[in-house]
Order: sequence, then structure tokens, then C-alpha cells
Amino acid sequence: MGRAEFRTTAASVSGKFRKIDECELEIPGPFCLVIFGASGDLAQRKILPSLYRLYRHELLPEHFFILGAARTDMGEDAFRLAVREKVESAFPEDFSGTGWDEFAARLYYLRVDYEKAESCPPLGERIDFLEERHYTRGNRIFYLAIPPDVYEPVIANLGSSGLSREEGGYTHIVIEKPIGRDLESAKRLNVIIGGSFRESQVYRMDHYLAKETVQNIIMLRFANLIFEPIWNRSYIDHVQITASETVGVEHRAGYYERAGVLRDMFQNHLLQLLALTAMEPPALFEAERVRDEKMKVLCSIRGFDLDSLSEFLVLGQYGRGRIGNLEVPGYREEQGIAGASMTPTFAAMRVFIDNWRWNGVPFYLRSGKRLAGRKAEISVHFKRVPHLLFSSAIGRGGIEPNVLVIRVQPKEGVNLLFETKTPGSRVCLSSAHMDFSYRKTSSLTDYERVLLDCMQGDQMLFVREDGVEAAWKLFTPLIDRTESDVTARNFPNYAAGSDGPREAGLLLEKDGRRWRKI
Amino acid sequence: MGRAEFRTTAASVSGKFRKIDECELEIPGPFCLVIFGASGDLAQRKILPSLYRLYRHELLPEHFFILGAARTDMGEDAFRLAVREKVESAFPEDFSGTGWDEFAARLYYLRVDYEKAESCPPLGERIDFLEERHYTRGNRIFYLAIPPDVYEPVIANLGSSGLSREEGGYTHIVIEKPIGRDLESAKRLNVIIGGSFRESQVYRMDHYLAKETVQNIIMLRFANLIFEPIWNRSYIDHVQITASETVGVEHRAGYYERAGVLRDMFQNHLLQLLALTAMEPPALFEAERVRDEKMKVLCSIRGFDLDSLSEFLVLGQYGRGRIGNLEVPGYREEQGIAGASMTPTFAAMRVFIDNWRWNGVPFYLRSGKRLAGRKAEISVHFKRVPHLLFSSAIGRGGIEPNVLVIRVQPKEGVNLLFETKTPGSRVCLSSAHMDFSYRKTSSLTDYERVLLDCMQGDQMLFVREDGVEAAWKLFTPLIDRTESDVTARNFPNYAAGSDGPREAGLLLEKDGRRWRKI
Repeated sequence: MGRAEFRTTAASVSGKFRKIDECELEIPGPFCLVIFGASGDLAQRKILPSLYRLYRHELLPEHFFILGAARTDMGEDAFRLAVREKVESAFPEDFSGTGWDEFAARLYYLRVDYEKAESCPPLGERIDFLEERHYTRGNRIFYLAIPPDVYEPVIANLGSSGLSREEGGYTHIVIEKPIGRDLESAKRLNVIIGGSFRESQVYRMDHYLAKETVQNIIMLRFANLIFEPIWNRSYIDHVQITASETVGVEHRAGYYERAGVLRDMFQNHLLQLLALTAMEPPALFEAERVRDEKMKVLCSIRGFDLDSLSEFLVLGQYGRGRIGNLEVPGYREEQGIAGASMTPTFAAMRVFIDNWRWNGVPFYLRSGKRLAGRKAEISVHFKRVPHLLFSSAIGRGGIEPNVLVIRVQPKEGVNLLFETKTPGSRVCLSSAHMDFSYRKTSSLTDYERVLLDCMQGDQMLFVREDGVEAAWKLFTPLIDRTESDVTARNFPNYAAGSDGPREAGLLLEKDGRRWRKI
Repeated sequence: MGRAEFRTTAASVSGKFRKIDECELEIPGPFCLVIFGASGDLAQRKILPSLYRLYRHELLPEHFFILGAARTDMGEDAFRLAVREKVESAFPEDFSGTGWDEFAARLYYLRVDYEKAESCPPLGERIDFLEERHYTRGNRIFYLAIPPDVYEPVIANLGSSGLSREEGGYTHIVIEKPIGRDLESAKRLNVIIGGSFRESQVYRMDHYLAKETVQNIIMLRFANLIFEPIWNRSYIDHVQITASETVGVEHRAGYYERAGVLRDMFQNHLLQLLALTAMEPPALFEAERVRDEKMKVLCSIRGFDLDSLSEFLVLGQYGRGRIGNLEVPGYREEQGIAGASMTPTFAAMRVFIDNWRWNGVPFYLRSGKRLAGRKAEISVHFKRVPHLLFSSAIGRGGIEPNVLVIRVQPKEGVNLLFETKTPGSRVCLSSAHMDFSYRKTSSLTDYERVLLDCMQGDQMLFVREDGVEAAWKLFTPLIDRTESDVTARNFPNYAAGSDGPREAGLLLEKDGRRWRKI
């Protein structure tokens, strides 16, 4: 597997383990982590607090250091103070003064200009110096927590300055979405990345893949005998994948206004969930083989018929409404959004996978902002029983088909809906739930897991170059077509706090199905 | 179905319904219930309190009466008082003074001599008189709550006096176990029954079949799509059926000493559970078709190789031990038990069903008294996954096979054991439970259900003549052989409060399997 392969090239893995939740976690080897954009929101709110928490749980090695790099002109002490505040407010229960001091002693800051190649020699010198001080043995991770428009210069500069090379240790680069905004830009970015890094060094992060349940889809399917025999078109009627948010556009107006829901959620997260749900068993449980199988699914998705969009696609944008007791503005009234914006904040679509396993089984995807609830789940809806043995006995009603629900968030777990006899003399069926929820004690957050995996050289939960391009190849023509004529859009077409536009319901109703409640 | 068939012949069904647990229960039509053995333990402890509770829950019709018949010389008032005491202590929460008075006004008593045909004319006259008073339209149920040695005269007398005839209404007879003590005696009893009653009038009760979960096996299997495709030898490794008790022989020493565990539990209850678990889908959900399918299973059970009993059968008898904090005596020290008794109080056996669905899948049955816990359950153990995808990743341990547990008692429900990823970064599988338990609010007890079914003419949960004989045909040679040479028995061979004799564990271990914890 990917990790094993890495171990043979890097002598630096410590081989130490730490027991968490009755399960041994491998403590990664020494490393240097350079965070570009260290003064920004993502680094301060997510990455640095996650690193601190890993440290507190003794999941980081003795020898490591973190070098924040950003355009902001600030001293090391100011940087440490800023991080301390964020960490303390993010994980008050895990915070300790002495723990912080130890952690902060490994925290550095360097002002860089992302677009200037001249930034790199000082960065390299600083890394060299700190590596010697912290005995990190040449293992380096560059984390790009910067706006996508400076991805290219930073990556190119790392390459041209030689910092991307692997000498003695590993050198990994972590990139977050958006990875391009269409096929062309994604390809160009991949070319830039490929000019400086080999694919085995590249960690394209999809934080949905880091969620507990998403990884568990693989386990559920292939570590249990009972699901795989019925995991196909003979027994499954359809699959629903929902990622609904109650929040609006928040502080991301500039990005979101240009992206819209199809780029923001479908091309990446929802497609990844679909691929894990639909893929064939991989030959081996290792990054390359799992990513091969996901790639096969993406290649098997039936191309969209752009001349009949309304057959399979519904777009929406939220208007004013209520979330709980709170009156909230419509999308067009949010700060930074154009008053006549045609950006979709909701989409629902039907996708077919043309292969032996899934032929004729629709996958319904749905995601949106300002919906009635916050949840992400995959529900596998089985067919009706072939013969209604009890029809005369139960009289009215009928038998509900089985549904297996994989809850990704907020309450991660698995749920099986099945029919049972209601206690009593007369035959009377009702639906029952078998339910399993993960214990939440001290599990890792998605960012903690992703960081650990990157330190350990496990690319399984990261998206491969060909996967990104296949997803864009599928979605780019669709997005282009939807954007070519926005005058037909009757936006806003759903109230904040609702289940989305009425048409989303009709999309399933015309197929004789209905969405699960959001 | 059986019930529908009955409706066409009896105009007496009220067609009224009562909603219990969101499920409408049909209220039976008017009836007369004669309980033979009305002063005995079974009638006083089970049948009469159950009738009162049905009445309190408005599940009995307006027009009915209960006539207790027994050898005890007592007046009607004394009888009512005795019943009142039992009812009040059995269901204190359901008891009300006015409710009792209404119920008691339908309660009568008649002294009879079971063995004398002369008892019948007065019984017939009394019934006729009360039928007119209570407008019960000729529907009659005779419930035999008497020792098995007087079954034959009572049944014969009912026949010869004409009381078994159906004139205007239905006439049903309810018989409890033991139905014979071997094939010959069971056949003889069936001949006696058949001489006076048609099979459609006969309700042979197996109170295990009246338990909620047992009926639910049929629903679980045939109202859900997901179980049936994997309910066969391709996916199931083996099945365990356990009925363990913590009690000893109690007040049944006389009967039990002659019966032993194979007659008391295996020939009836365990075989019925096995039949429901293993049967093919019936053509229709009606009594005759379901009993046809159970019969097919009994006919497909591989005959026992009597020359190598130890290959598939382990017998045991409890010695002294502890149940919880209580020191309890061994079987041979119980009151009414011979000091050198060779009666088995425990048995474990392996059974094969030779048909397409089950060839090669062992069914392990186990039952005993004074075991570590009280439970009845069926556990379906699925095979291991065909390919251990995660072996290198999870290192040690391995993957536990899926198990579906159908809990019959005490906490009725369904439980699915499956493998899941333990939260954390490293791949680490652990077993998780999905669990479903029935709500217990106001459900019917097994006796209540059986009584209602008998009033409604539904024979589904009762054992048919051919079923009783097939079960005895299977077990009689086996029991005869085990009883032909008891000197080899090293009784007592398990301590009260244990899991049974060590050999029971070995029975599965030699097949590479192990019992679920009792």
C-alpha cells in the first residue's frame, strides 16, 4: 500500500504507536511543515488548532516544527500569540499553558511574497536552519492555505528553487479546493504541479473524504459479507446523496459568487461520495488501487444530455426565510453578492452509472445552502420485495422498502430501515430502525486525520490528478451550458429554511420516488 | 387465509377493530370458552389472567362467557374469588374493581369428572343455558388445561356427547404440550382427536410460536428485501438456536423426570424455531401454507446417525452451583427427583437440513435448565468475507463475520453485528451492533395472543397434526437410543449457573466454531 511503499524510501518513520479508541495510531516520523497563508483564516481556524490538538494527544513525533509563511508582516511572537488565541478558543478543553509553551517552541514565522521567486532562497535557508535545530531529517510538507490565484506561482517557485525535491526525506504538498474552476484550469494547475512535484508527492484534499463515515463506506462494503451481495442493480432501486447546509454564503461571497453550488459541492464532494458508494472492490486496500476504482466509476457516469437539462437537473437560489427562529436574508441580499445574482446555491440532479453493477439505477444528488437542516448522508434504497406475501393480511398500507443510511454528518453512523411486525395479534407491519452511531470520544477531526495521513504518506483519502480531471470533464460542459443562458432562471426560487425548490421534489416524483427528509 | 376461510362459515365475527400500538386488532366475535382444569395452575396463573387482561383492553367482544370445569368441588363464588386473587396479583396495574365485576359476571364454574362420559350432558346443558343468556351464537372453545393423561377421555367424551360438533358457530379445541411422549403416543392422541374433531378445529399450542419475535421471523424474512438473497448456504455459515433457562425443574419434577430436555424443548419449541428460520417462502400468508412449509423443513432434516451420537449430540444434567448470589441444589437433589436420576436437563446438538437452500449448513441447537442466563435467540452466522481486503492494513486480529441475532426473549428484538472502522486515522476495524428492540407498551402476552387467534380461527401459530408427528418421527429413535443405555452418562456434568457441559463447547469447536455467550 501507499504507506508501505513510502516507508521503504524514507527511513524517518518512527514506527511508534499510540492507542486511541482501542485502536493503535501510528505516530508519524519527524517533519517540517510549511504553511503558506499561515496568517489567513484557514490556517488559523483549522490547520494550526488541529496540529496543536494532535500534539496534545501525543500523536506528533518529538521532532517537528511548523513554519508559517505569509504576506503579512509580523514577528514570530505576534504569530505565536495569534495562533494561541485561535487554539484556545477552538479547543478550550484541550488547552494547557505548559503544553502550549512546548508546542509554541516549534512554531516559526517568515514573511514571504508568494509571487516572487526571490522569496524561496530565504525560505530554504530558514528550513535548513530549523531542520538542523529540530532533527526533522529532511521530511517536508508544504501546505497551501492560500487563495487559488496564487497556487501557480507558489508551486512553480517551490519547483524552480529546488525545494520540491525529495532528498533524504519526503517532500509533500497539500492543496485544497478549488482545484481549478473548469477542466482547462484544472489541467493547467495539474501541469504546473507536475512540473515541480511527482504525483506521489501531491495531496489534493477533499475534506469530505476525511470524515469518519466516508472512510467507513469502504469498510462497510468490503469488511461485511451481507451488504456486497445485494449492492447492485438487482436489489437496489436508487441511491440518494444529500449534503445540505443551513448556513448561507457566510464570508465566502467573492469565491462563491463565481463558483456556485455545482463547482463548490458536486464536482468534488458529492462525486467522491458517489464514487465510494458505487466502486468495485479494489484489488488491494491501498491508495492507488482505491483511486483506480473511483476513477473507473467517474469514467462510467453517463454523459449529461445538455439539450434536456431539466430532465435531470434542478438549480435553485435561496430567498429570504427563517432558519429556526432567525429571519435570514436572501442570497442576493448577502454582503458581497450582486443584487441580480444568478449564482445557484442549490442543485439536485439525477446521475446514471453505465456499468454492469449499476445500469438503470439512478443516483440522485442534492446539495444546497440555507436548507431546513444540516446533514450529509448517503441512503441506499432497496427495491420492494418481489412478492407481497402479506397483502391480504395487512390490508391497506403496504410494505416500505429497506433503506440503508450512511450518515456522514452531523451524527456519524449507520442506520438500517426494515419492516417488522408491530406487537399485537393481527398482522401489522411497521418500519423499524436498526441504528449504530460512532462514539465521539477523542476521535480525530477531519483536518487532524488529513494532516496525519499526509505525514504518513498515505494518499488514500486524497484525490488523484486523473480523478480531478475526470470530474471536471464531466461537469464543465454542464456548468458551461447552465451558465450560457441564465435569463430563464426564476431565482430566488426557494425560501431559506425550506427543503429547496419545488422542482427538486418533482425530479424524483416523476420517477415515482421521493427524497428523504432533509 | 385461515381466518378469511373461517369468516365465510361463521357469521358470528363482529368485524370490529381496536387500535393497539398503531395497529388495528380485530375484536373476535361472541364466544363460549370452557376451560378444563380451571382450578389448576395453568388456568389460574396464565389463562384466566390473560382473559381478564384482554377484557380490560377491550379486545373481547360484548358477548362471551367463560365456564371453568374441573374436578375440584367448589362453588361459583369460590371460583370467582380464587381467579380474582390470581388476576390481581398477575396484573395489578390493569386491575379495577368495577372492571372485575363486569368480567366476573361472565365467569362460571362446573364440577366435572374428566374420565366419566356422564359429565358431558350436564356440561352441554350448562353451555346451552349460558349461551342463551350471553348471546354467544354457538361459538365454543374447549381449552384443555389438564394433565396429559386425561386428554384422551376428555376429548373422546366431547366427541361422543356431540359437543365437538360445529352447529351454527365454530367449535375449537386447544391442547398444550406435551402432545405425546413419542411417535406412537402422539399418533394415538391424534387419532383420538381426529375421532372427535376435524383438523381445522384443533389448536395445538406451542407457546414459543406465540412470542412476538417468532412471528416476526416470517416478517423479517419476507417483508424485507435485504435478508432473503443472503438467506442460504452461499452466505450463511451456520445457525445457532439457544433456549436457556436459569430456573431448575421447579414444580414440574414428576413430568420432567419422565420427559427430559429433548422431549420438553427440542421436539417442539426448538424444532419450530428451526422450521421458521429455514423454511421457503410460503405461497400465501395463511395457516395451511405456512404449516406446509414448516412441514417441508421437518421432512428435510437429515436423519440422525444413531451409531455415532457423540458426533452431534451432547447431553447434560446440572449439579450444584450458583445462580447469581444464590446457592442452588443439583438436579438430583431437587424435590421429587430420583437421587440417581439419568434425566438430561441440557442438550446441544447439530442438525443438517438436506435441501438446496441449506445443504452443508449446520444448525446448532442448545437448551438447558440452570444455565448462566435466561434467553432464547436465533443467531444467523454469515460466512467470512471472501477476500480479506484489509489484512495488511489491519495487521493482527481479523474481521469478525456478520451475525444477525433474532432475540426471542427476554428483550425481544433484532440485532445485527457488523464490522466498522474504529474512529481514528489508522485502519482499525471493530464490531458494531445495530440494534432494534420492540416497544413493550401494552403488547399482548403469548397467552393473550394465542387466545385471540383461537377465537378468530387463525391456526397459523398452532402446530398441525402432521407437524407433531414429523417431529416425533425424527426425535423418537434418538431419544430411545439415548435412553437405552444411560450408564455411560457421567451425570451431573455441569454446574448450575454455568454454560453447560464442556462437551457442548467441543461440539462446535471441532467444527471450527463457537457458541454465542449464554
